[in-house]
Amino acid sequence: MSAPPTYQDVLDAAGRIAPHAHRTPVLHSRLIDAELGAQVLFKCENFQRMGAFKFRGAYNALCRLSAAQRRAGVVAYSSGNHAQAVALAAQLLDIPATIVMPHDAPAAKVAATRGYGGHIISYDRYTEDREEIARTLTAERGLALIPPFDHPHVIAGQGTAAKELFEEAGELDALFVPLGGGGLLSGTALAAGALAPRCTLYGVEPEAGDDGRRSLREGRIVRIDIPRTIADGAQTEHLGTLPFTLLRRAAPEILTATDAQLIEAMRMFFTLMKIVVEPTGCLGLAALRTMAGQLRGRRVGVLVSGGNIDPARFAALTAR
Amino acid sequence: MSAPPTYQDVLDAAGRIAPHAHRTPVLHSRLIDAELGAQVLFKCENFQRMGAFKFRGAYNALCRLSAAQRRAGVVAYSSGNHAQAVALAAQLLDIPATIVMPHDAPAAKVAATRGYGGHIISYDRYTEDREEIARTLTAERGLALIPPFDHPHVIAGQGTAAKELFEEAGELDALFVPLGGGGLLSGTALAAGALAPRCTLYGVEPEAGDDGRRSLREGRIVRIDIPRTIADGAQTEHLGTLPFTLLRRAAPEILTATDAQLIEAMRMFFTLMKIVVEPTGCLGLAALRTMAGQLRGRRVGVLVSGGNIDPARFAALTAR
Repeated sequence: MSAPPTYQDVLDAAGRIAPHAHRTPVLHSRLIDAELGAQVLFKCENFQRMGAFKFRGAYNALCRLSAAQRRAGVVAYSSGNHAQAVALAAQLLDIPATIVMPHDAPAAKVAATRGYGGHIISYDRYTEDREEIARTLTAERGLALIPPFDHPHVIAGQGTAAKELFEEAGELDALFVPLGGGGLLSGTALAAGALAPRCTLYGVEPEAGDDGRRSLREGRIVRIDIPRTIADGAQTEHLGTLPFTLLRRAAPEILTATDAQLIEAMRMFFTLMKIVVEPTGCLGLAALRTMAGQLRGRRVGVLVSGGNIDPARFAALTAR
Repeated sequence: MSAPPTYQDVLDAAGRIAPHAHRTPVLHSRLIDAELGAQVLFKCENFQRMGAFKFRGAYNALCRLSAAQRRAGVVAYSSGNHAQAVALAAQLLDIPATIVMPHDAPAAKVAATRGYGGHIISYDRYTEDREEIARTLTAERGLALIPPFDHPHVIAGQGTAAKELFEEAGELDALFVPLGGGGLLSGTALAAGALAPRCTLYGVEPEAGDDGRRSLREGRIVRIDIPRTIADGAQTEHLGTLPFTLLRRAAPEILTATDAQLIEAMRMFFTLMKIVVEPTGCLGLAALRTMAGQLRGRRVGVLVSGGNIDPARFAALTAR
């Protein structure tokens, strides 16, 4: 098992990805501030290349491969955004990429992954094990596996988003971050530990899959069935080992959000901020709204993880 | 009749609105650049306060009122964004505002106008004359009329958006601007004349209402029936007198876009840039796409005028 990354790895990753990743804008809304009684700053990774923070970790990890590994190619399994991220990073670095995707992944994500030149292998997320499929590909074809979160270079890359946010916004009183496998949250914890030690970190997972909260409470990685939630980017069965190690140290608060709360946040982003945020990207705002009373007068960050949702799916979810 | 504004008026307006208006971001999309073969810069006034560039002109105009006029209050007629703009500017300046709105104005725009404290009077846009209603209010109640485009301070305020774009992007080869009554386009022409004299200016109006093109061709203000188009912000019967005077001097090219082309542009903004743009705000991108062959290799600006559309309306328009 690899050693957990440190803040130095986040710094190294930042230098590596700077020429290729967008430094995404930090936006705010007077109307949301007024509703919540707080100053809320949204780090908009929905404006990141391929539409999500995942590009950061993928590009950093692919940069670290040996020349021989680059020639052999990479494989990734993902419900969507990590797939696109690896496909795009691989395209930029001229590395062949094979992506193992669930057959019910959002159409826009599948199309984009293919558009970036990724070779796609489909599987059934309720009956087949994507990790097993990927492992077979690494064994048979010599491909380097790029896991979506349980990898030190991926985690270090994801930490660069919060680094940028703290650099731009200064220390914050609280920061809300989506939580699936824990790559983004643990990378964020590294950045927060170095740049904003007094900031309270909140990880937010779908209510249908609160394995992260239970894992930190019980001191062991709790495994659950694939949660049925619209937050497809957080449909994970368990935290990664490295994220779990880092999160035990950082001890973030863990909150949950229901699908209905995510939809309400999607509508707020659309109506008040004119931005498109996918359900997983709404976890932070959704949870923040449930505890606004405790954050009155505070400066609060929200990591908006991605915006990859097609108009038809958006319409179906927000219809009422 | 007032004298047409000059670029000096745009400069004065910029100073006046700076503490209150957002300096909106200039965004781009690698995927759109790749499709069009040009470098396209989007000035995102959908991120402006109240969701559209109209705040600039309204705030500037209200600042110029006498103390007595401020006490009496203001009245505006508008299909939507100008209404919200006057209501918000009036709220900030503590001026009572009455807004004359069509009964079929988008629900989100009516609600927002009311939210900013505007008193709303409804009318039927196909059978009643909003200018007449507003004139009666000015006569009977002494309210100052703030017209949506035919006013030197409004035009000067609208010109500040293009001023910011040229300051940030430098001279451009071409700039695409929505055209309804001509306030934004004529203000933009003032900024372009001073800051980017070699930039080709394109005004884009709905195909259902090409009175602007005909007016400039015929050398007189052509009046048409209210055009039936989804671009509700450009549902104007004729150019304003001041905009017409300025546009005859500036001689922009006039293009048109169909509703289907606007919808396709809405989808592109949503899918590729993760931003919400109302149909009128899509006029520039829609027209640019029809003439991409002529702009290959060029640096092109697009003024995205607003983002005020509710999710249900967006869904209905983009469904297919």
